Amino acid sequence: MSLVVQKFGGTSVADPERLRAVADHVARTRRRGDQVVVVVSAMGKETDELIRLAERTSSTLPGREMDMLLSAGERKAMALLCMALHDLGVPSDSFTGSQAGIITDTFHTRAKILEVRGDRLRQCLAEGKVPVVAGFQGVSTTNDITTLGRGGSDTSAVALAAALGAEACEKYSDVPGVFTADPRVVPDAKRLAQLSFEEMLEIAATATPPGVLAFRAVEFARNHGVPIHVRSSFSWEPGTWVREEDPSMEQPIISAVTHDTSEAKVTVTRVPDKPGIAARLFRSLADENVNLDMIVQNVSQEGLTDISFTVPKSDLEVALKVCRSHAGEISAADVLTDDGIAKVSLVGAGMKTHPGVSADMFETLANHGVNIEMISTSPIRITCVVRADQVEEAVQALHSAFELGE
Amino acid sequence: MSLVVQKFGGTSVADPERLRAVADHVARTRRRGDQVVVVVSAMGKETDELIRLAERTSSTLPGREMDMLLSAGERKAMALLCMALHDLGVPSDSFTGSQAGIITDTFHTRAKILEVRGDRLRQCLAEGKVPVVAGFQGVSTTNDITTLGRGGSDTSAVALAAALGAEACEKYSDVPGVFTADPRVVPDAKRLAQLSFEEMLEIAATATPPGVLAFRAVEFARNHGVPIHVRSSFSWEPGTWVREEDPSMEQPIISAVTHDTSEAKVTVTRVPDKPGIAARLFRSLADENVNLDMIVQNVSQEGLTDISFTVPKSDLEVALKVCRSHAGEISAADVLTDDGIAKVSLVGAGMKTHPGVSADMFETLANHGVNIEMISTSPIRITCVVRADQVEEAVQALHSAFELGE
Repeated sequence: MSLVVQKFGGTSVADPERLRAVADHVARTRRRGDQVVVVVSAMGKETDELIRLAERTSSTLPGREMDMLLSAGERKAMALLCMALHDLGVPSDSFTGSQAGIITDTFHTRAKILEVRGDRLRQCLAEGKVPVVAGFQGVSTTNDITTLGRGGSDTSAVALAAALGAEACEKYSDVPGVFTADPRVVPDAKRLAQLSFEEMLEIAATATPPGVLAFRAVEFARNHGVPIHVRSSFSWEPGTWVREEDPSMEQPIISAVTHDTSEAKVTVTRVPDKPGIAARLFRSLADENVNLDMIVQNVSQEGLTDISFTVPKSDLEVALKVCRSHAGEISAADVLTDDGIAKVSLVGAGMKTHPGVSADMFETLANHGVNIEMISTSPIRITCVVRADQVEEAVQALHSAFELGE
Repeated sequence: MSLVVQKFGGTSVADPERLRAVADHVARTRRRGDQVVVVVSAMGKETDELIRLAERTSSTLPGREMDMLLSAGERKAMALLCMALHDLGVPSDSFTGSQAGIITDTFHTRAKILEVRGDRLRQCLAEGKVPVVAGFQGVSTTNDITTLGRGGSDTSAVALAAALGAEACEKYSDVPGVFTADPRVVPDAKRLAQLSFEEMLEIAATATPPGVLAFRAVEFARNHGVPIHVRSSFSWEPGTWVREEDPSMEQPIISAVTHDTSEAKVTVTRVPDKPGIAARLFRSLADENVNLDMIVQNVSQEGLTDISFTVPKSDLEVALKVCRSHAGEISAADVLTDDGIAKVSLVGAGMKTHPGVSADMFETLANHGVNIEMISTSPIRITCVVRADQVEEAVQALHSAFELGE
């Protein structure tokens, strides 16, 4: 008998009918002989609705109270799911993040998990019941309710799987797995049977919308060796396994083409190429919580250089303000912005041992008349910044050139 | 500087605008120099909506999960109220029933408060903040979330006032106080300036809808000597004070006329008038959680008697089943039901020392052609069962005869 953590997202628990379908799914897993711990998100779009309600009530939105408010969402989903399980004769108890022993730091609305105690969950399992746990939430070291921020429910599920020694963490949603490219852009994109943690991290970091698995959940899974199975809550089809790379298996060179249209580019021109100048700028951006992604510095000419970076469009205004206020201090000529860009990336563990990939990529883009504005690479990823209106063509061309389709 | 507990019901916190009005009210109380602890109910009709959601999801509705679900309601209201207080510069923290130290027994959906620890609330007050506490909920001795059932939020507020040594518990709602009769039935009914706990208990027990204060909250307040101020959340007008009877003040003979149309009558006919027969019947009714109210046993004739009692209409079906299944065993001739009845009551601490009140009441009803079907009395109350279609006339006649109007 093995233990599996099953995580169901908002779409999967959006209404009574779907809650009953999830209960049925859990009941079948039990009949197969497995022990199950369930982690749920808030129903449908409830978290967004709670945020809107808060914004209608308050202009200050204190973090402690936002967490108290938002944590009501999962509470409803988990209680209702337990009721549906009772109806099927499956004994189950719901647990808040606090009751499940998910201990976090004290940073409200974006807390990090410090420890998972899990005593009550082990007790519940020992009594032959299914624990249903609220995702996205925990209790801080000062006994206040916290939420984990974006991707929090996935992280809760992986953390519980690690703490309880589960065989796997199954993530159920309306997305049946990880695909070689966004199927809306590439009709013959195919579901990947498996991926390494590293590949999944690169995909999670370079895809928009933020991918089927939250970056931090994958990171947690990699650090604790928890295999994740990404699959559909509407079928029993296998999805995509994300786990340790198996060195005995031959790796495909490229696993996926991803793209992201959510960022903008900022360029600070003609900055003196002296030690400390870039550091001063990036420290100020970090102090304002601006999320920098790609950073490129041109080769220096006459002691001056251009520094370009990409930021989420939502951070653009703040980034611009910071750069302009520093332009004088660092003797920059100008600060330019461009929100008509997009990123296209190739991800694949196999490219580590195949040196020709970047050349193939650049050639493919050139053959389609797609100009490359910035480049950044990791051992298993190559990302190019291109014009936003050319990104779909770029994705299709690369997907076809690397023969990723069905 | 004195401490006051302010309890706001669902109507008072129904939407962002009203939440901001409540925050303003709390801020003014603080500026007046008082310390405040706030207790809130769920917003508007949210508890009813959560119950409907549960009923759409499950047919078994396990109590532990119902409590987990319903406790989400106050959580939203208290977090939003704290945000609105922050906006006004009033520091405040929200607390769940569990965080506030409201310890209950383990009877889900109708838990009783065993103890109020309140350490975190005292700490919060000492830091100069306003604690905002979830009404209606607590944590059981086995660390499960519980709710207190009907009238739970009022009870939470009174229990906190008692535990924290508050000067008073102010109950705010859309009802500006306790009236001499239901103003919808008696247009010149007037607001009472004050009432004794005993009178309030009788009024709470005999009025429908269940009155402006829950019976159990009044009982708790009486046992702990906590004065309650029932008042409107939409004005600063004084409402009705409910407190210990002041023996130095002259009591009005009658304080209020109440009525109740929510009950039905059951009569078990021709029961042998022998010890233990009635006990057996009423034990079985108690085992089924049937809430008996008035019980009347006629004088025995030929060793046989009729036993009548009233029950909430919602319990009628179960009561009937129990009586029918026992009819043979206790040799009863028949079981009759009547859901066309209503109760009308006179309540007044002064009637203890004025023996003619019941005669006056019966005469007044007779003069208006209202037939009396059952009578029950306490030292400060007389209740008559009459036909439901005559109850409004009965209330108006009594209100006028005892000169209770403006």
